Amino acid sequence: MIGSRTRSAGTHGMPAESTDFSALPEPELRARAAAWFTALRDDLVAAFEAIEKEGSSSETCPTPTRFDRQPWVRPGGGGGEMSILRGFVLEKAGVNVSTVEGVLPEAFRARIPGAAADGRFWASGISVVVHPRSPLVPAAHMNTRMIVTARRWFGGGADMTPVFPVDEDTATFHGALRTVCEAADPAYWARFKAWCDEYFWLPHRGEPRGIGGIFFDDLATADPEADFTFVRSVGRAFLEAYPAIVRRRMYEPWSAEQKRAQLIKRGRYVEFNLLWDRGTRFGIETGGNADAVLMSLPPEVAWP
Amino acid sequence: MIGSRTRSAGTHGMPAESTDFSALPEPELRARAAAWFTALRDDLVAAFEAIEKEGSSSETCPTPTRFDRQPWVRPGGGGGEMSILRGFVLEKAGVNVSTVEGVLPEAFRARIPGAAADGRFWASGISVVVHPRSPLVPAAHMNTRMIVTARRWFGGGADMTPVFPVDEDTATFHGALRTVCEAADPAYWARFKAWCDEYFWLPHRGEPRGIGGIFFDDLATADPEADFTFVRSVGRAFLEAYPAIVRRRMYEPWSAEQKRAQLIKRGRYVEFNLLWDRGTRFGIETGGNADAVLMSLPPEVAWP
Repeated sequence: MIGSRTRSAGTHGMPAESTDFSALPEPELRARAAAWFTALRDDLVAAFEAIEKEGSSSETCPTPTRFDRQPWVRPGGGGGEMSILRGFVLEKAGVNVSTVEGVLPEAFRARIPGAAADGRFWASGISVVVHPRSPLVPAAHMNTRMIVTARRWFGGGADMTPVFPVDEDTATFHGALRTVCEAADPAYWARFKAWCDEYFWLPHRGEPRGIGGIFFDDLATADPEADFTFVRSVGRAFLEAYPAIVRRRMYEPWSAEQKRAQLIKRGRYVEFNLLWDRGTRFGIETGGNADAVLMSLPPEVAWP
Repeated sequence: MIGSRTRSAGTHGMPAESTDFSALPEPELRARAAAWFTALRDDLVAAFEAIEKEGSSSETCPTPTRFDRQPWVRPGGGGGEMSILRGFVLEKAGVNVSTVEGVLPEAFRARIPGAAADGRFWASGISVVVHPRSPLVPAAHMNTRMIVTARRWFGGGADMTPVFPVDEDTATFHGALRTVCEAADPAYWARFKAWCDEYFWLPHRGEPRGIGGIFFDDLATADPEADFTFVRSVGRAFLEAYPAIVRRRMYEPWSAEQKRAQLIKRGRYVEFNLLWDRGTRFGIETGGNADAVLMSLPPEVAWP
């Protein structure tokens, strides 16, 4: 039996450790979290497809574009589904859900809470990135996840990257996130907003990626149900606020100069994601599906 | 005196160490190397401007584009000059020369030969990147440098990134580099070619950046003059071979599909430079001039 486990583990280049992931903490909460991320994906896909339908005229785009879904399997265990829309209003929108399990490579264990003694992990999450065609519609990103090792925690956030920031849009976006933060814990808004500003910072440019939002990690209070409720409310806040901002700006005419500014701003977005984003580096270095990890990259980009 | 040195060093956030760079090894060779890199820059700029003149018709481009030069100063010591052409044939060509000196941050000393005990360094080099407009003309990169700490060595290389590799072009490019390698040392060609293939590899895509060329570092034989001769011959080989390949392909008509394939190939180029290129990361992490460090990025890029 040990022999067979060793051989099977060896196939995936993994150490010969127990791969009984059902023994990890909170199997019931894990199943509900994975189901929630999938349900949120369905709602976001529907919301973005509705925007495409509204924003495409019969002339420019006779059949409104819909998401294309590609399931993928992780060699080490689990998998996900990548949904991509290449639309008229939303030049590129990607929604990725995944639920994976496996054994962390030795090199990563020290960095991951609860993984030092036992490399087994389970992770489920949703990641959303939208790059609209119009330079007047902000790009946006949202992701939430539940991770389980010997410990369990939630992480995620939502932030927006306009080319030309408009106070009204920033207020809508920040306001929605502030409301759900304050409903969960009076300290969350200030803490998670500052964390977001710190995280989405380009040191080599001395500038932020966008106008921020919230970022949180290692969220594991004494009440897992409250943490899960908060994570769901972040998803719902994004689902309400961001499509409203897109609808507010999507019919405004824009110039070639504004489009050029957008392509250059997108270059900064690429620089952040490839040079500094820890999630991207983790995905790349652990041999994640490159197309899924790099789904966040904008469709067209320029460097001046 | 110590006080004044401490204060001056403190201004740049550097430790209070000796900043007498003339005491570093081989001042005479350093001066000649810096002069060579500048002379090679002038030759490359002239060669690329000649191509622009030949390839631009009076209709498409009445006045052939020329390089724009921007000098820059490094806060810690020294500086450089960035020359950029945004042409008709050569959509973006950048040639950067720099000669800098300073004291390496503690965190970098262990990685740099001869810097463990004394952080002082001097470095001079040239870096060239060309992204042609036509998807049938290969992109190319060349760089050579001399670095001095308590030790002295040369490094550099040249490689080419076609979208659609053509054996004839590969043979021209590799042939020129092979000739200068074999003139210097019978072992160089095989060693530096393999080093190049290993270096310009995208592990997350399982593919090379291009068709390779040569890459070398820590070149410090018993004969510094021979090393410098080799470095100059690499620059001259690039100056002969690459413009010849551009001229061979620049009038061939290309399709929208080929252009699209080029933009996607350029995305892989960006992924390599930002995720894996040690030179880029070193430049970014040591607070180098971001525009100069990222001059290598293509002008227009797409992710599918």
